[in-house]
Amino acid sequence: MKIVRSSVEKLGAYVVAQDLDVVKLNQNEAPEDVPAEVKERVIEKLRRAGWNRYPAGGPAELEEKLSGLTGFPVGGILAGNGSNELIQAALAATCEPGDRVLTVRPGFAVYKRVAGLLSLAIDEAPLDEGFRFDADGIIAGSRGARAVVLASPNNPTGTSLSDADAGRIIRSFDGPVIIDEAYFEFHGRTVQGLVASHPNLIVLRTLSKAWRLAGARLGYLLGDEAVVRGIAKAKLPFSVGFFARIAGEALLESRDVLEAAAGRIVAERDRVFDALLGIPGIEPVPSSANFILFGTGRASGVEFFERLRKRGVLVRPFDDPALRRHLRVTIGTPREDDAFIDAARRVAAEAGS
Amino acid sequence: MKIVRSSVEKLGAYVVAQDLDVVKLNQNEAPEDVPAEVKERVIEKLRRAGWNRYPAGGPAELEEKLSGLTGFPVGGILAGNGSNELIQAALAATCEPGDRVLTVRPGFAVYKRVAGLLSLAIDEAPLDEGFRFDADGIIAGSRGARAVVLASPNNPTGTSLSDADAGRIIRSFDGPVIIDEAYFEFHGRTVQGLVASHPNLIVLRTLSKAWRLAGARLGYLLGDEAVVRGIAKAKLPFSVGFFARIAGEALLESRDVLEAAAGRIVAERDRVFDALLGIPGIEPVPSSANFILFGTGRASGVEFFERLRKRGVLVRPFDDPALRRHLRVTIGTPREDDAFIDAARRVAAEAGS
Repeated sequence: MKIVRSSVEKLGAYVVAQDLDVVKLNQNEAPEDVPAEVKERVIEKLRRAGWNRYPAGGPAELEEKLSGLTGFPVGGILAGNGSNELIQAALAATCEPGDRVLTVRPGFAVYKRVAGLLSLAIDEAPLDEGFRFDADGIIAGSRGARAVVLASPNNPTGTSLSDADAGRIIRSFDGPVIIDEAYFEFHGRTVQGLVASHPNLIVLRTLSKAWRLAGARLGYLLGDEAVVRGIAKAKLPFSVGFFARIAGEALLESRDVLEAAAGRIVAERDRVFDALLGIPGIEPVPSSANFILFGTGRASGVEFFERLRKRGVLVRPFDDPALRRHLRVTIGTPREDDAFIDAARRVAAEAGS
Repeated sequence: MKIVRSSVEKLGAYVVAQDLDVVKLNQNEAPEDVPAEVKERVIEKLRRAGWNRYPAGGPAELEEKLSGLTGFPVGGILAGNGSNELIQAALAATCEPGDRVLTVRPGFAVYKRVAGLLSLAIDEAPLDEGFRFDADGIIAGSRGARAVVLASPNNPTGTSLSDADAGRIIRSFDGPVIIDEAYFEFHGRTVQGLVASHPNLIVLRTLSKAWRLAGARLGYLLGDEAVVRGIAKAKLPFSVGFFARIAGEALLESRDVLEAAAGRIVAERDRVFDALLGIPGIEPVPSSANFILFGTGRASGVEFFERLRKRGVLVRPFDDPALRRHLRVTIGTPREDDAFIDAARRVAAEAGS
């Protein structure tokens, strides 16, 4: 008998290049580490913590700090092992096998992956030719779907829903609408205010990007209290370890530092965008996140990727045929970004294959 | 439209009492913290780590150390965010919605929970009247099932499969057989040697018990390399944070310390067992884990639990009607165990309600 089921067997492994001796701009990470002062506060708490004890099972200090950050009541907040786990829990809590879930394309690969694991069918409403959201297409595509899940700002395009379009989508659909705001801090706009009037709206956030905590795995979800209670039941017990809790609590006490850093990333993003615009053949897509998608002007984005890699700069290529000419670059430090711009300029000037 | 589906809505929340000002013997945790010397090694590595970077995506130092511990090749090992995540990934990788999964009763509540989230049907083969495994019953119950999942030693009974019975069950069934060896280090016997000849066998382990790392969330799975590749695809990317990796690596370098501590727990378990045998009305079940299930001699285990709690000792009661007269106590330090034995003796001598 086959042990692994075919639908899982045929999935690709989720592999991301993690070269270390390069300018690493491929995972939308923050370029700066957590401030040393915050690390030391975390380390002091770690020394005192009992590592042998299970982490707190219910809302505690972390959720209270997230409540202070977001203005949501503690009961409307759920922390998870990265927002990946919360995507899975939100779909497991709301969808039955065979249900259809609508997302957009190009979009974040994990939604499709999680839907497949839960035996849900995925439909993809295309973005328009400029990778902008097509709200009418999403509303039309959501008919008969059980849930809508999309990221705004969207990964890997960096484009975002307007407030008006987000409102229209949420109001037009009565099943769960999951809006992943992983890149919220670089955009500054959120749909969270609609949860009060639309309990079908579920908002996802992460501490992996602007908050610099990709390594610790910490995400959170905002929603209607009854819905959050249901999603909590679909999450594995004790999934958020005490390190992620302690590190998250310490970072949330340093909000000013982090918000200033997000502001610097936004300014740097605009500088990189302008530089890319000036390179013949390169077509950057306007972004409200901490990365930029760009057309390479070549038939093969992967070839452009490999040439950048040879010059010591790691960016992100795509399997999706709609993105076969494109690459995504994360905004780094000014020095890293200069290295990328210089390498991109040189590769663009080379003859393509 | 209802947002949370009924099958999830009707689940109870997974709640465990986490009182702090008590002798805490309710979660099968190790009574001793990670040695201070190990903590300091972890902290030194934490200071140097980039918290802003995603953890390694594939097998790395942790998996190599687990390979050294178990003798399995790195490709036959998968680390997870606690073994809970690996139970979910193993079932998601191998079962289709509607498939029937056989487990035993009383057993570990998480199997049933995870099966429900994946829309699998659970069947429960009963243990015998002494809470021993009934291999014939399991083999009969597995006919028509897609997978078998059970823990040996079993939680909450502490009983374990004999090598002969484990072998018979694994050989008689050609779908996935998931054996959760979370309490392996207190028992010393494993079925891992059968993986080479039976690629349907999947073995789960955890660093939450004997290795004292409940707070960090780290489990691992041993299996046939092709099966492990499939299960890895059903696991969320980056689910094991860098703290769990670093802490796991440091502990695996201190194997001797941990193995000696597991030996002390086993000796202490036998002492507590004998003491319980001497209390009129109390009926302890022979255990090969770091806890003991005992009949309270009362109609209500919960009443006995509350009386122990008033005396400052926290143990584990059950909802399962088959265990309504029973409680489970984790083996702690000799002093904690003395406090428990003294409290149990006093409660047993009180008039029941």
